[in-house]
Amino acid sequence: MYIDGRKRVVIENVKPEIDGGRFPIKRVAGEKVVVTADIFADGHDAVWANLLYKRPCDSRWKEIPMKAGENDRREAEFIAEEMGTYLYTIEGGIDSFTTWQKDLRKKFDANQDIRVDILTGIQYITDSSQRASADDQKTLLAYIDLLKTERTGQKVVSIASREELGKLMNAYRDRRFAVNYGKELSVIVDRKKAIFSTWYERFPRSCSPEPGKHGTFMDCEAILPEIAKMGFDVFYLPPIHPIGRTNRKGKNNSPVSGLNDVGSPWAIGSLEGGHKSVHPHLGTPEDFERLINKARDYDIEIAMDLAYQCSPDHPYVAEHPEWFKWRPDGSVQHAENPPKIYEDVLPLNFETEQWRQLWDELKSIVVFWREKGIRIFRVDNPHTKPFSFWEWLIREVKGKYPDVIFLSEAFTRPTVMNYLAKLGFTQSYTYFTWRNTKQELIGYITELTRTERREYFRPNFWPNTPDILPEHLQYGGRPAFMIRLLLAATLSSSYGIFGPAFELCVSEAVPGKEEYLDSEKYEIRHWNWDGPGNLRDFIARVNRIRKENPALQTTDNVQFYETDNDYILFYGKATEDLSQIILVAVNLDPYHTRSGYVKVPVSAFGIDIGHPYLVHDLLTDGRYVWQGEKNYVELRPDSIPAHIFKVRKRLKREADFDYFM
Amino acid sequence: MYIDGRKRVVIENVKPEIDGGRFPIKRVAGEKVVVTADIFADGHDAVWANLLYKRPCDSRWKEIPMKAGENDRREAEFIAEEMGTYLYTIEGGIDSFTTWQKDLRKKFDANQDIRVDILTGIQYITDSSQRASADDQKTLLAYIDLLKTERTGQKVVSIASREELGKLMNAYRDRRFAVNYGKELSVIVDRKKAIFSTWYERFPRSCSPEPGKHGTFMDCEAILPEIAKMGFDVFYLPPIHPIGRTNRKGKNNSPVSGLNDVGSPWAIGSLEGGHKSVHPHLGTPEDFERLINKARDYDIEIAMDLAYQCSPDHPYVAEHPEWFKWRPDGSVQHAENPPKIYEDVLPLNFETEQWRQLWDELKSIVVFWREKGIRIFRVDNPHTKPFSFWEWLIREVKGKYPDVIFLSEAFTRPTVMNYLAKLGFTQSYTYFTWRNTKQELIGYITELTRTERREYFRPNFWPNTPDILPEHLQYGGRPAFMIRLLLAATLSSSYGIFGPAFELCVSEAVPGKEEYLDSEKYEIRHWNWDGPGNLRDFIARVNRIRKENPALQTTDNVQFYETDNDYILFYGKATEDLSQIILVAVNLDPYHTRSGYVKVPVSAFGIDIGHPYLVHDLLTDGRYVWQGEKNYVELRPDSIPAHIFKVRKRLKREADFDYFM
Repeated sequence: MYIDGRKRVVIENVKPEIDGGRFPIKRVAGEKVVVTADIFADGHDAVWANLLYKRPCDSRWKEIPMKAGENDRREAEFIAEEMGTYLYTIEGGIDSFTTWQKDLRKKFDANQDIRVDILTGIQYITDSSQRASADDQKTLLAYIDLLKTERTGQKVVSIASREELGKLMNAYRDRRFAVNYGKELSVIVDRKKAIFSTWYERFPRSCSPEPGKHGTFMDCEAILPEIAKMGFDVFYLPPIHPIGRTNRKGKNNSPVSGLNDVGSPWAIGSLEGGHKSVHPHLGTPEDFERLINKARDYDIEIAMDLAYQCSPDHPYVAEHPEWFKWRPDGSVQHAENPPKIYEDVLPLNFETEQWRQLWDELKSIVVFWREKGIRIFRVDNPHTKPFSFWEWLIREVKGKYPDVIFLSEAFTRPTVMNYLAKLGFTQSYTYFTWRNTKQELIGYITELTRTERREYFRPNFWPNTPDILPEHLQYGGRPAFMIRLLLAATLSSSYGIFGPAFELCVSEAVPGKEEYLDSEKYEIRHWNWDGPGNLRDFIARVNRIRKENPALQTTDNVQFYETDNDYILFYGKATEDLSQIILVAVNLDPYHTRSGYVKVPVSAFGIDIGHPYLVHDLLTDGRYVWQGEKNYVELRPDSIPAHIFKVRKRLKREADFDYFM
Repeated sequence: MYIDGRKRVVIENVKPEIDGGRFPIKRVAGEKVVVTADIFADGHDAVWANLLYKRPCDSRWKEIPMKAGENDRREAEFIAEEMGTYLYTIEGGIDSFTTWQKDLRKKFDANQDIRVDILTGIQYITDSSQRASADDQKTLLAYIDLLKTERTGQKVVSIASREELGKLMNAYRDRRFAVNYGKELSVIVDRKKAIFSTWYERFPRSCSPEPGKHGTFMDCEAILPEIAKMGFDVFYLPPIHPIGRTNRKGKNNSPVSGLNDVGSPWAIGSLEGGHKSVHPHLGTPEDFERLINKARDYDIEIAMDLAYQCSPDHPYVAEHPEWFKWRPDGSVQHAENPPKIYEDVLPLNFETEQWRQLWDELKSIVVFWREKGIRIFRVDNPHTKPFSFWEWLIREVKGKYPDVIFLSEAFTRPTVMNYLAKLGFTQSYTYFTWRNTKQELIGYITELTRTERREYFRPNFWPNTPDILPEHLQYGGRPAFMIRLLLAATLSSSYGIFGPAFELCVSEAVPGKEEYLDSEKYEIRHWNWDGPGNLRDFIARVNRIRKENPALQTTDNVQFYETDNDYILFYGKATEDLSQIILVAVNLDPYHTRSGYVKVPVSAFGIDIGHPYLVHDLLTDGRYVWQGEKNYVELRPDSIPAHIFKVRKRLKREADFDYFM
């Protein structure tokens, strides 16, 4: 930056910028990137600054002049139009001509002699004209003539201030001492589903309509209409690969299994194949591809589980023993987190000398399935494989297939969860699963949406998973399931449930643990999907509200508002132009009716404090006329423990009363 | 960082680190540098991490193991012993042996078979023994024998856990896949005066005891005892160089001067010389050197003004016309900030083709005076010269003379003021001059001491300067002067006043401006230093309190505490070990007595809430026995509008009542 002492402009405090540019920010196609920076020089000279952006393959940068804000802050924005990568940086310099224009006017206004200053201005124009196109040169030389011949100061100053002249002078300014920020910052641009997705997880082997029978891809196909009716657009299947026999787990994670036990789908690989094969009981590879295609007809994408680990029977063990750890007695190392041992699973040894071959093979698995039409991968325990591997894998895959979405299942420490998002995961599981009180929810969501994390960490909220049946769902009954679904679906624009356990409000846990009793991880379950009290219609309604209301399709726009009741969470989401405003009030207590006053930020919404406005509850279709900031709500867990209001501002004219019909 | 896929450790969020390591942090000799970072790996392996530090000339890094804190946070510290530069960075890796030790114990406690695990441990020890010194190798091999021969699990685990073994294994660990942070961060280490200094500014030409006579260096020498008595340790002189005649300013900044007008000392340079010469009326170069040496006898340092600008008569103008700007009519460009014109001053043209020669000459000025014994420079308007110049100049000078202190007089926008501190200025003028209300003071000082700025921005608080007579000193009378002095002296460990205008409570301003009437910038003033109501004794007392109490010798340790009166500012400063606690209560209202309750954080101080404690007012020598948190103060502007309490915790034994005597 300091090659030439005459480069006087400083560019600092550039935002967004993650870890000094080490990591990209994330956007979806069509989203804005607003870039701000402190840009200044010594002295009182005016400073010009441009935001530069381009695709990596473009040879030229596009330039956008940055607008001046308070205290040397500059701002400009560009639209990340297409999927892939964009680069951005900043350039700036001393704007001698604007300085001259400004000073000339000040001197003239103070009745000072400006004759020599005019000569200085003519010098600037002469210089620029030598860099100009023939046409522009002609225009600039005409200005010089005007400045030379004009006799009254008033007129000279007015000519010198002309917009056309300023624009031409900017176009041909002296850039010899321009300063470049020196870093190319990057944006990963995904498709819209990266920020707005609604997930339904289900074990395909439990999808058979006949009790006791092993479900198939065809059974999955058969329930697609119901999944679509519930409003889900991602159907995520736990691993569909052959399952190992050696040390296969029995029901409820028993270390001993019987002949009829089906084992954990995460114990991947057997004589029948590994990560590129499908379990023969589920069907053929063709069946799976048909499922993928059929789902597309319902606007549903099939998401696959990416679990980089092997059963002891996986073909890799024989073909690539160097990819595993071998113990001094010649036995293979099982997965373990002492004193826990996972006898049915072998970890891959990322510290092998052959790590490059291992990485290449693991990448080929993603490419293999992407070629079959899979564009979403839910990654199992990414925090137990090296970070540098993920960074490489995701960059490699998205370099060729920018539409691929990786969801990180990193239920681990905050630094690690966060780092995985930084290095490239498209979405991430979160701590939402264990955030229940008002304070916990506001604190956690503020952290996600009001800090730098919003630039790279895209939450996906899950009230339950096959691994986690949280305490509040064990004891809160059906209202707790409704509450958790409402929160997940309206706080985060991406969320998912593990069904049918969720919609059937299954609450039986292994005693003292947050785990499902008779977990589908180890056995086939048959569900009565139409069981009494099921939440399918409720879920369908919530998801329809999400689909119909753009304000609910981003996460960062959430704003929390005051209430006088600690059990009522009240928040809003609005589109940037405020054309749509959604307000949500949720009773966090599944046991008791809670009521109180919520505080609507009417002036922020552009609503006159004295005028009534309509709030339309999209859950019940109820309509209420509210006025001013404080309004009353009463939320009953025995019916629907929440409101999702669409706010309709009252029009000014009395004739518009039909809004209230 | 990702050369080898087997490097699994991540080091991020390193603090302190300014702008990704672009700028150094600052310390004084003997101060600690506490370094923290998030350090983690995939999986559950233990991680080792060392803080590395060294002087740039050292070939080897010193290593300090980093202690684990919450959530992957690690911490270690080193002492920056000597002036100059220190570098620091971090290294970490997978700690396989510690992981093994931990897992072995867990498995044993869970009654699992550990026979193969012992073999694994023996492998680790064998590997490390091959890297060990002969003696250590012997010890390690002895451990292998022990592990091989010992038969009971209990004993094996206890041998494996021995501290000696762990230490040896750490010393000879496998570092092939260690990760280095990849950046060398730096610390500029100054002498103590950089954070604790007490400045007195005075125009030498106004120092003559005889009215109407031009003061001299000898006159300055004569008042050294009085300056020392007031407790100042820096005597800062505005420019002492020959003053130009061309366009010399008259009294009160008049554009016309008479023959007897002395001109502004900042219009540097005449036939008699430039920046390396002294004004003949002040004395000879030898007189000035004697003043420097004499001051040393009083523990006072002479600080010089570094004003890089020239009068039209400066020898540079003829010798180096290329260092100035010339206008199209052949005239030279005066300093201006339209519509203001400074006809007696020419700015240097840092955009000249000969900028390197100009830089070298400007550096030679600092070196010239440093060689004469000047180690402190107050830099005039650094924000009107290029930033890259200052960064280079300060690095060059301090590379050879690490004891040099540069005070930045950048009364300008926050970004610029801040950036100058980042790029190397040792101390900085601040906005304190205009922060008066409780809210303003707490807000501003919190910004200085509770953000990253504390690492590089060292405030120097000035209640007045030759350029600024703030409104509250114009109208607040003597109490306002006492209040502002007390605040400056106890909030900031470095502060200064412009005298004798300050201690004589001079309040006559140019009407409607914050400027002194009959400013000494343009004329010689004669002062009656013993005038009635002068603050000399009061200042002496405040400065003695600063000198005697280490808690007041740093700035960042300030803590604000509650009071129930908006005009009472209550804050404390304590040494790190709490061996000294100072509490300050200041009445911010110079017109009325204000009283109220202040809240002492007794538990944070280790004072039992039920026990009385003594607060000793160092200003009045008054002693009060307080108890608990809330205590009453009454502060009268007509006597002393503040308390500076030294807190004495009551000893436990009844016999210690003599504390209250």
